[in-house]
Amino acid sequence: MLNETNVNLGKVRSTIRELFEYGKIRKAEIGDNNVFDFSIGNPSVPAPEEVKKALVDLIENTDPVALHGYTSAQGYFSVRKSIAEELNSKFSTSLNADCIYMTCGASASLTVTLNALLNKGDEVIVFAPFFPEYKVFCEHAGGKLVTIGCDNSFQPDLAKFKKALSNKTKAVIINSPNNPSGVIYSEQTIKQIVKLVEECKNDIYIISDEPYRELVFNGVKIPFIMNYYKRSIVCYSYSKSLSLPGERIGYIAVNNQAEDFADLYAAILGAGRALGFVCAPALFQQLVKRCHGKTADLSIYRANRDRLLEKLTEYGFEFAKPDGAFYLFLKSPEGDARAFAERAKKYEILLVAGNDFGCGEYARLSYCVSPQMIERALPAFEKLAQSYNLSK
Amino acid sequence: MLNETNVNLGKVRSTIRELFEYGKIRKAEIGDNNVFDFSIGNPSVPAPEEVKKALVDLIENTDPVALHGYTSAQGYFSVRKSIAEELNSKFSTSLNADCIYMTCGASASLTVTLNALLNKGDEVIVFAPFFPEYKVFCEHAGGKLVTIGCDNSFQPDLAKFKKALSNKTKAVIINSPNNPSGVIYSEQTIKQIVKLVEECKNDIYIISDEPYRELVFNGVKIPFIMNYYKRSIVCYSYSKSLSLPGERIGYIAVNNQAEDFADLYAAILGAGRALGFVCAPALFQQLVKRCHGKTADLSIYRANRDRLLEKLTEYGFEFAKPDGAFYLFLKSPEGDARAFAERAKKYEILLVAGNDFGCGEYARLSYCVSPQMIERALPAFEKLAQSYNLSK
Repeated sequence: MLNETNVNLGKVRSTIRELFEYGKIRKAEIGDNNVFDFSIGNPSVPAPEEVKKALVDLIENTDPVALHGYTSAQGYFSVRKSIAEELNSKFSTSLNADCIYMTCGASASLTVTLNALLNKGDEVIVFAPFFPEYKVFCEHAGGKLVTIGCDNSFQPDLAKFKKALSNKTKAVIINSPNNPSGVIYSEQTIKQIVKLVEECKNDIYIISDEPYRELVFNGVKIPFIMNYYKRSIVCYSYSKSLSLPGERIGYIAVNNQAEDFADLYAAILGAGRALGFVCAPALFQQLVKRCHGKTADLSIYRANRDRLLEKLTEYGFEFAKPDGAFYLFLKSPEGDARAFAERAKKYEILLVAGNDFGCGEYARLSYCVSPQMIERALPAFEKLAQSYNLSK
Repeated sequence: MLNETNVNLGKVRSTIRELFEYGKIRKAEIGDNNVFDFSIGNPSVPAPEEVKKALVDLIENTDPVALHGYTSAQGYFSVRKSIAEELNSKFSTSLNADCIYMTCGASASLTVTLNALLNKGDEVIVFAPFFPEYKVFCEHAGGKLVTIGCDNSFQPDLAKFKKALSNKTKAVIINSPNNPSGVIYSEQTIKQIVKLVEECKNDIYIISDEPYRELVFNGVKIPFIMNYYKRSIVCYSYSKSLSLPGERIGYIAVNNQAEDFADLYAAILGAGRALGFVCAPALFQQLVKRCHGKTADLSIYRANRDRLLEKLTEYGFEFAKPDGAFYLFLKSPEGDARAFAERAKKYEILLVAGNDFGCGEYARLSYCVSPQMIERALPAFEKLAQSYNLSK
């Protein structure tokens, strides 16, 4: 008998993946331009020009044995040093190279971290809505994901959080800007989460999953968890900021203020080994060092967001307040998000029902698409609104 | 409490890593040219020129959104198709794209495969000498590694193997050309392994870990496991053949003759998801498609091997018959390999004692080094031999 958990994980496609496949078939039937696919969080903005230049320069002017060779398991020292310095200059931390562990992207950052922390039966608290793979990652690491249901504000429900904290709690995951809501947790929220954690017991870890850190609108400031809590770990990826999702490059930053820092970093190293992460891709380690502070042209996402906000409000839709990432979380006009997403399909609009994200009354719209597609989609959204008799 | 297993894995360096760090310090003390570091399996031969050309061409002439975007979890269809076709043409198999799962290198191929197969308590049989991380990977996946001790021939001891097979056995790992012995398993050996497995029960998987497939000397033919056994899985990496160890690119090929192929491939997909492997690095997926049939200049390894064989034999050393990979497995003249490796250090020669590989009477010499270093090292080997009064 094979490992049944993994057979099932491989067979049951995620809702997002299912919709993506549906979209491919539908596009073949009626033409790419007639399907309005808002299902996938795959950046549509190219990597910045500096990426191309730096890659070509590295490939043409570096000894290939050095360029493509193994790095140490935690990554190149110089790359880790540059990341620590960047974080220190942005967030007034005192990190050094040995606080950073280079990873194959955000998912790897999370699986390595969870496997470092968890013993069988440990609980990990997450606030809905949340990225569905958290559950998969947590359970593989032997843990149990405890979800705190969402309210209308999409800020964590702190009363419920307080009740969920127990001596079984090993970690809390926060994800801000949030996938799928686009909401950013305020400094007040972060302070309250930290206060409740500290009141419960003193060895809970806070994991901040922040691949959308740079995708923030209206000058909203994202509190950096290490400035509020010692036993904290930041999971980062360059997938969104540099538009490199397929290249699998990111990092884990471990707060060197944590009382058990040495053991914690060792556990990260050990977990990486056990999962088969030998080192993060070497060329892209060098690349990100050359591209600190650079991002893809994120203004396109802002323009998309503003246009959708304006028109969808006009059509009568309601949604979470989207201050970051590239998602709008639309309230289902008929309560159930799956029925809403099904009806949207009739207008060739692909939205992901929020059920798997822990919010069954909302659907996710990924606006990391071309502005042209948004313009083409607007009449369809208007008809969808009219089908519900939403007020203009 | 953190996950103690992973804390320990992170704290206790592997013997190879320990020696590598010693080498760095020693080189700083007495100069790079005076330390003869045969400890690491990091290719010294550059990637073939085609790699550079193809990378620059891909980067300069592909839309960056497509080039660096997410691929499907199992990898680009076109890349998988080309790999299936390459294997079919080499080994007369009938694989297709959906038998291939692209991975972040050989370690990832193994961890994904083991997590796909194993339930808690399942046993995996491996023949010593073997790559020490097999134990780490197997135990993380919930399994128990059962090792069959080595004899002087370094071919599997089939009598011991027969005794070790039981209804707890879930898989057998073979690794030929072998790390650390350089030995290749004969067709006769493979046939006997298969026969014994089939006699035991019919649902044991044979995993062939073959990153050294192309590193073969004297025209010795390596039997391809899929031609002998249906329930088989090949774990491959381009690290050695294309000299790209840091770029983390490889694949799993699942035999579509396996009775439970659909479930098996699904389990691979699911295990990849659970471990946090979203997709293999996209640029290097495209790269390997362009480089099928190409290898780094492996003739340098052959020349190194021939030179070492000639001189070390002359000095009186004994070793396993090295038909492939880039390792010589030297017999300790004093029985214990750790003592031998310690004495070699006095002559500034760094060898890895075979204890962690399951053979405590041999030490591994990695000859993926420059021919110049070998020439410089020969007088030191001669003195080492003289210190044991080995006959010339």
